[in-house]
Amino acid sequence: MKLTDPDRLFPVETRTRQLARDLYESIAELPIISPHGHCDPRWFAENTRFADPAQLFVVPDHYVFRMLVSQGVSMNDLGISRLDGTKVEADPRTIWRRFAENYHLFRGTPSSLWLNHSFEHVFGIDEILSADTADAYYDHIDAKLAEDAFRPRALFDRFGIEALATTEGSLDDLHWHTTIAKADWNGRVLTTYRPDAVIDPEFEGFVDNVAKLGEITGEDTATWSGYLSAHRIRRAFFKSVGATATDHGHPTARTEDLPLAQVESLFAKAIAGGCSADEADAFRGQMLTEMARMSLEDGLVMQIHPGSFRNHSKTVFKVYGRDKGFDIPTRTDYVHALKPMLDAVGMEPNLTIILFTLDETSYGRELAPLAGAYPALRLGPAWWFFDSGEGMKRYREVTTETCGFYNTVGFNDDTRAFCSIPARHDVARRSDCAYLANLVASGLLDMSEAHEVARDLTYNLAKQAYKL
Amino acid sequence: MKLTDPDRLFPVETRTRQLARDLYESIAELPIISPHGHCDPRWFAENTRFADPAQLFVVPDHYVFRMLVSQGVSMNDLGISRLDGTKVEADPRTIWRRFAENYHLFRGTPSSLWLNHSFEHVFGIDEILSADTADAYYDHIDAKLAEDAFRPRALFDRFGIEALATTEGSLDDLHWHTTIAKADWNGRVLTTYRPDAVIDPEFEGFVDNVAKLGEITGEDTATWSGYLSAHRIRRAFFKSVGATATDHGHPTARTEDLPLAQVESLFAKAIAGGCSADEADAFRGQMLTEMARMSLEDGLVMQIHPGSFRNHSKTVFKVYGRDKGFDIPTRTDYVHALKPMLDAVGMEPNLTIILFTLDETSYGRELAPLAGAYPALRLGPAWWFFDSGEGMKRYREVTTETCGFYNTVGFNDDTRAFCSIPARHDVARRSDCAYLANLVASGLLDMSEAHEVARDLTYNLAKQAYKL
Amino acid sequence: MKLTDPDRLFPVETRTRQLARDLYESIAELPIISPHGHCDPRWFAENTRFADPAQLFVVPDHYVFRMLVSQGVSMNDLGISRLDGTKVEADPRTIWRRFAENYHLFRGTPSSLWLNHSFEHVFGIDEILSADTADAYYDHIDAKLAEDAFRPRALFDRFGIEALATTEGSLDDLHWHTTIAKADWNGRVLTTYRPDAVIDPEFEGFVDNVAKLGEITGEDTATWSGYLSAHRIRRAFFKSVGATATDHGHPTARTEDLPLAQVESLFAKAIAGGCSADEADAFRGQMLTEMARMSLEDGLVMQIHPGSFRNHSKTVFKVYGRDKGFDIPTRTDYVHALKPMLDAVGMEPNLTIILFTLDETSYGRELAPLAGAYPALRLGPAWWFFDSGEGMKRYREVTTETCGFYNTVGFNDDTRAFCSIPARHDVARRSDCAYLANLVASGLLDMSEAHEVARDLTYNLAKQAYKL
Repeated sequence: MKLTDPDRLFPVETRTRQLARDLYESIAELPIISPHGHCDPRWFAENTRFADPAQLFVVPDHYVFRMLVSQGVSMNDLGISRLDGTKVEADPRTIWRRFAENYHLFRGTPSSLWLNHSFEHVFGIDEILSADTADAYYDHIDAKLAEDAFRPRALFDRFGIEALATTEGSLDDLHWHTTIAKADWNGRVLTTYRPDAVIDPEFEGFVDNVAKLGEITGEDTATWSGYLSAHRIRRAFFKSVGATATDHGHPTARTEDLPLAQVESLFAKAIAGGCSADEADAFRGQMLTEMARMSLEDGLVMQIHPGSFRNHSKTVFKVYGRDKGFDIPTRTDYVHALKPMLDAVGMEPNLTIILFTLDETSYGRELAPLAGAYPALRLGPAWWFFDSGEGMKRYREVTTETCGFYNTVGFNDDTRAFCSIPARHDVARRSDCAYLANLVASGLLDMSEAHEVARDLTYNLAKQAYKL
Repeated sequence: MKLTDPDRLFPVETRTRQLARDLYESIAELPIISPHGHCDPRWFAENTRFADPAQLFVVPDHYVFRMLVSQGVSMNDLGISRLDGTKVEADPRTIWRRFAENYHLFRGTPSSLWLNHSFEHVFGIDEILSADTADAYYDHIDAKLAEDAFRPRALFDRFGIEALATTEGSLDDLHWHTTIAKADWNGRVLTTYRPDAVIDPEFEGFVDNVAKLGEITGEDTATWSGYLSAHRIRRAFFKSVGATATDHGHPTARTEDLPLAQVESLFAKAIAGGCSADEADAFRGQMLTEMARMSLEDGLVMQIHPGSFRNHSKTVFKVYGRDKGFDIPTRTDYVHALKPMLDAVGMEPNLTIILFTLDETSYGRELAPLAGAYPALRLGPAWWFFDSGEGMKRYREVTTETCGFYNTVGFNDDTRAFCSIPARHDVARRSDCAYLANLVASGLLDMSEAHEVARDLTYNLAKQAYKL
Repeated sequence: MKLTDPDRLFPVETRTRQLARDLYESIAELPIISPHGHCDPRWFAENTRFADPAQLFVVPDHYVFRMLVSQGVSMNDLGISRLDGTKVEADPRTIWRRFAENYHLFRGTPSSLWLNHSFEHVFGIDEILSADTADAYYDHIDAKLAEDAFRPRALFDRFGIEALATTEGSLDDLHWHTTIAKADWNGRVLTTYRPDAVIDPEFEGFVDNVAKLGEITGEDTATWSGYLSAHRIRRAFFKSVGATATDHGHPTARTEDLPLAQVESLFAKAIAGGCSADEADAFRGQMLTEMARMSLEDGLVMQIHPGSFRNHSKTVFKVYGRDKGFDIPTRTDYVHALKPMLDAVGMEPNLTIILFTLDETSYGRELAPLAGAYPALRLGPAWWFFDSGEGMKRYREVTTETCGFYNTVGFNDDTRAFCSIPARHDVARRSDCAYLANLVASGLLDMSEAHEVARDLTYNLAKQAYKL
């Protein structure tokens, strides 16, 4: 048995499947453009081996461990470290076995697709993971990780990655990126300017972060104009190290374009740590418009990733901290929320703002109509919980008729699970080819047009939108 | 002509259809687990014949008569009794003819699927119902109902029901259940603890109901602690008669975990009949958390069925009363609403809270992410308006990728239409097999895994989740 | 190569496709009933030639030019006139070339389906539009437009239109309609009563409009009762010229049924130009109930088209004015919003209120349950952004199981793009046949029933619902 079916994700009807295969064959080997993600640049700077199978596949991947937790496995037993330092499971093989014996939980999920793809195509395994095969798996992967061919840079090259963007905070010194640039290696790893920690008054340490921003830039970040200048300086620095984009992960999509006096007063409250929840939201909203204006100046592409209720479980947040699989999507409004920013800069043809959502109801009702009208807007791909076969199918079915293909920007893998990158791009390529094959079979698109669109969705649109 | 197609609800593509058939054959004859519904236990306690075809299929079934009403048939003419006692149509044959001549209205609806299934598989009819066949239908069904083989217990046995849960209010003496228990019959009919009438300050007669709760239990339900004790006593009583679950049908999913003083003050207002709408909602929300805590103690599985705007038409409610087909789903928030309860008990692996929704937008955005993280949560099946082929398809397509199959709990028929129970479970089995067949045909699941999952969805998950 | 595939929009599976073809063949040639749209009655009154290809296909069609604008083409360059009279592109051939060279943007959109259908079936072209073919296209269409066979009345007849409704404001003198009535031509062109400009306190010129309504009718529209009488008079006038329906395009679906004193006070504020945003919304809501009551009197069918955030871009509105492709759907509530009106008249079997939505989430959660219960309600077809293959598919899949086919009202093209009318009805017919074919192939409907339903959806339901 193979772990992955060569026709996976293709339409089931024979003729349509053949069309999908033909389209896929023509784009399957195109290089990977990964313009948004969360890999650690240190991997490529140091190029040391990945620690062990559990650290590679289980412990850092919240898609994986939250599913085990949802069925009663404790985080401690999966080696998730506790903030208080209490001991948790430290034996990677034990963690791996717990994962293996619960592997049936992932049936029908994209995680199983990504994992099986990695197991087969990265590590050459062809048996399904289970309690029975857990140890053989562990030994095999662990041995492979010791080989040079499985170090980060070698995998990066083998995966056919043409460009990979990581994400760093405004205060980051980008040491790993400058190290990579100087290294004897041609891999293109870019940073992205992610200023949430110095923009969001509710972020842990915001007040100190803004002060630190002042120190780093030599600007007086206690004043509004100094604070904006500091952003400009950091953006320029990120750009000089290769960044082509910024990223913004706010709880809502709210934007504001308030009168200067009001903004200065909000800012003063924020850096004094005295914002109410609504004032914090308004300040974040104002900053989206400010960032858009700076993008118009410096050309950095702007990404907005709103709508996640972060760290939903009080207990998990207290004991284990951020990013532990308890981020839950919320209903998100874009029509009213984005209007202030769009009134300010939405008609600018030289600006690119890429919108994402975790609320699929907004695709057809709000985002496609907005992206299908405003020149500054583009629609990001299906994101996070919707980065899956069904999620991508719904995304295309609901958005294409209103904003077409050319107001979308190709695929983002948005991952910190390095080995899943080829798998995720492969899912996107197959899903897009399946969608296009259905259009062709339904008489709605010519096969020659479909070939062109397939190449655009896979490669050209991402390069253009992200200026890569 | 047959009324039901042997391949109904299966995928249309030949190979995929064959996979669905194979899966279906392996589970079609499994016993029915019906862990949530509204059959009348009296049927099984007394085992007298069902009155007539109109009383069996039309008058008590709000799915059926609301469709006729929506096209201008008056409720009077369908024999729906009026609260003021004014005469309504009393001749069952006349009612039946009105139903029959409008039967085309049900084309494409699950009602037609359930009705045709019952007509064919329960009563052996193979002609479509229409004005022309109305009388023949009536005579045939009426004659069958006179046979012993069509009494409630005989049908229960013939339907292959392993367990059937009904729903009773906190004040119910469970007389019919104890009668069934003592009867010379092996059918397993369980009750479910449904305390809405003593929990919801806006329920008709709430104040009196709470007083009555005190009388029955010997607790002082004028005090908060006495009120909680009374619940504990009734829960224990329901459990002693066989209940394994509670059920809660609130207008919203709001939960609260308020400080004791605030709760006591809310409670005092509630039993004085003085709650504002928001206070009533807060009190209901607090009680969900209290019920969850009691479930942690006594092991009863908790079901939350929120989001129906009950008795939407003022006229219909005034003239005909509750449950007359005018309950309309509303937009429902879960992410913020459930947080207080989840912060209190959501990480408990020994607690099971089953969530339902009438707002399909919450499947992918809220419910699957929540159920795919919190160990205490499980996702109930597609409910009410979505208990249908398309509804179940969307349910699986939207939830599986995020929470998998194993955070769901199998099927609920949720019905008071006894003869439709086999039909409804059959729809669920076919829909699940169709979904699984598509996964297999799309290379996303192995056929051997699909067989396992099909059995789990049909039988094992319901037994486990409801402790049956 | 042909521009349109004879099997377009049909299911891809062979047997199901054949069923769809059979159904389609039986209804493809039925006359077009177009009960709601925005064609200009002057075309049919004067019957002069359409100006040029750009004026026919690009400049007035916001579906078309907003897509070009979204990719950076300026409105000026597309010949969209500016309110300040500044010159814009005046050469139709230049505009046409800009459209042609961007034609790939429409891939996968209904616009491309409609345009290709018009190019091929109205103008006899069989090459795809592109930069290369732009001039040949232009010359060919322009030459055709000079022929008598391409004048408005000739096309109307050739399109097989049995009835076409346009939409006029309350103050319109219906001159073009009376001209058509007197003309030597049998085409049936009806008006529709659209009173937004005299109902919505936020409409430009509302106060003057209400005064003008008084002048026209001889009623004192400074009083509430005079204002209502004026509406009755205008409705009667519209009806006398052929209208069978009214139409209401409010920002929300809010209805009210307030006590008289409160209504009079709201009205007084409104005509004094002194309403707050909420009061304006309340007044609009009250007027929906008043209009429904008048419909009960005079038999005009009522259409409610809520939920568009009109003129979203401040810049575009200021420079180019209304209806420039920047109307964005918003989340819309119906369950609470419609209750006051439904409590007043919802149970009337002799009233028809047709509901539309731009919020697809309301189909299954709100609109189908409401239309499947209240006798006065019917569900309008998929609208605007959802008037497309996928949009119609979702509409049927989500609504049919709850409200059936017979609480829907056939298709509306809702267009001002005259040449697209046959194309749009063809999309609806094909989509419905595809849906029905899938039901038949899935064993959920008999082929003979499907034939009946296909004819009802195409022809009978629209005629009945709109009393045509």
